[in-house]
Amino acid sequence: MIKRDAFRLREQLRVRWAETDLQGIVFNGHYLTYFDVAITEYWRAIGLPYPAAFAGIGVDVFAVKSTVEYLAPARFDEVIEVGCRAARLGRSSIAFALAIWRDGALITRGEVVYVCADPVARRSMPIPVPLRRAIEAYEQPPIEA
Amino acid sequence: MIKRDAFRLREQLRVRWAETDLQGIVFNGHYLTYFDVAITEYWRAIGLPYPAAFAGIGVDVFAVKSTVEYLAPARFDEVIEVGCRAARLGRSSIAFALAIWRDGALITRGEVVYVCADPVARRSMPIPVPLRRAIEAYEQPPIEA
Amino acid sequence: MIKRDAFRLREQLRVRWAETDLQGIVFNGHYLTYFDVAITEYWRAIGLPYPAAFAGIGVDVFAVKSTVEYLAPARFDEVIEVGCRAARLGRSSIAFALAIWRDGALITRGEVVYVCADPVARRSMPIPVPLRRAIEAYEQPPIEA
Amino acid sequence: MIKRDAFRLREQLRVRWAETDLQGIVFNGHYLTYFDVAITEYWRAIGLPYPAAFAGIGVDVFAVKSTVEYLAPARFDEVIEVGCRAARLGRSSIAFALAIWRDGALITRGEVVYVCADPVARRSMPIPVPLRRAIEAYEQPPIEA
Repeated sequence: MIKRDAFRLREQLRVRWAETDLQGIVFNGHYLTYFDVAITEYWRAIGLPYPAAFAGIGVDVFAVKSTVEYLAPARFDEVIEVGCRAARLGRSSIAFALAIWRDGALITRGEVVYVCADPVARRSMPIPVPLRRAIEAYEQPPIEA
Repeated sequence: MIKRDAFRLREQLRVRWAETDLQGIVFNGHYLTYFDVAITEYWRAIGLPYPAAFAGIGVDVFAVKSTVEYLAPARFDEVIEVGCRAARLGRSSIAFALAIWRDGALITRGEVVYVCADPVARRSMPIPVPLRRAIEAYEQPPIEA
Repeated sequence: MIKRDAFRLREQLRVRWAETDLQGIVFNGHYLTYFDVAITEYWRAIGLPYPAAFAGIGVDVFAVKSTVEYLAPARFDEVIEVGCRAARLGRSSIAFALAIWRDGALITRGEVVYVCADPVARRSMPIPVPLRRAIEAYEQPPIEA
Repeated sequence: MIKRDAFRLREQLRVRWAETDLQGIVFNGHYLTYFDVAITEYWRAIGLPYPAAFAGIGVDVFAVKSTVEYLAPARFDEVIEVGCRAARLGRSSIAFALAIWRDGALITRGEVVYVCADPVARRSMPIPVPLRRAIEAYEQPPIEA
């Protein structure tokens, strides 16, 4: 289920000095920054770069839940690959599966769930049709129903 | 279950400018830094300040899983209260329940699970007795079995 | 010139785990976050909390130059004291002297220069009178002309 | 003096969401992270990747002074180019000139000064010959005496 081929969007990063802590490994919170970098690239890859294209269709997205599983630590200067895949679409929610590999070995996996919301009132709203279609058109293999 | 009184350890923080993003709210990854600050205070509160006291009993702890639920956003300059409670103790794992309140209202909740490991080999090991006893002695109400 | 008594605004912080790097010391960029925390408290102390009071008088401030001198490293869990003092006021610029002490010993000093700007056009503008007066009224000893 | 051609080492970065603040621009402290990323690449470019090659020649480097001048703000998702050049070599100190361009226009410039130190005692020591030679061999045009 965390097969690398299932992630069309894979972004390479190099671990920065400022991201490592006294234990010699990346601080646990920074993996959410890595996930966020991959999600930014995901929006661009589906043709809806955030935030301009989102403003254009009258929606904003807010994180409602994040999960990170640390299987093995990333270390300073390592090149890692962050994969992002839309795993489930609800009425207003988008759940991304995220995974990080180093030399092809999975070292981190996680999930970030966003909810679509009105940009001004910040109340949840259904996923706008152009956003849903762009996600569904992008994902190969298709998102499970 | 996220009753504020169940958290003996509650640490106040003020949201920093550098922690807020373009959406005007705290970036989702920084909540793990807030959790980490509370966990640092937790170790101090039980009498085993990290990392010195841990080195003294020959153990280190590594995060294996983090979960954050964002119920409402924290904003610049707000004073928030971060609660940390040992919720479950396994053979080698310690699961912390974490919660953040603003003006007494719950805005974030989450969990960070650590595993005890040999400091050098980084292989998992049972929770050392002094660490287990310190946690059990601290928690009121007692940890559920 | 970096006498502790010359800094009316002194804010205590505890160094966070996430702020330390592999060298076992605070990453050099994070001192600017510490400075920023003290500057936030400075605006509050003079009665003009940022950003609300600034919006109220039609001004925003942008950093134009930062300098940090690292005399001795801060380490994880240390309690440090960050001092902030308006050292020079130009026509549109405000230069803050900043200093960090640990156990009363100076470990960092620096300067952050802001320029007042129109919030919309972001063009520089003279320091608004209420802001200049609030700073001059606060500083003891008075700012050198 | 901040001619782009004078910087052999130029590293491209994309501004991350987590690096932008409420003003819609990169927080002033994060430029030191960008500088640090370029300095990491500099050590690699001269054939002495940090920290392994430094440990090999018995030296560590510590930042003693940083300066950043913010000429124009970087914003979310922009691709920027960070240049790093050894500008002056003292007996034990290495001063890097740093500069950031966006679309070829200079938006930030600065300096980070390191001092060579004994890795254990952390006392300053002369720049080891292999390090000095690697820097001098790399810089074109040559470093001014």
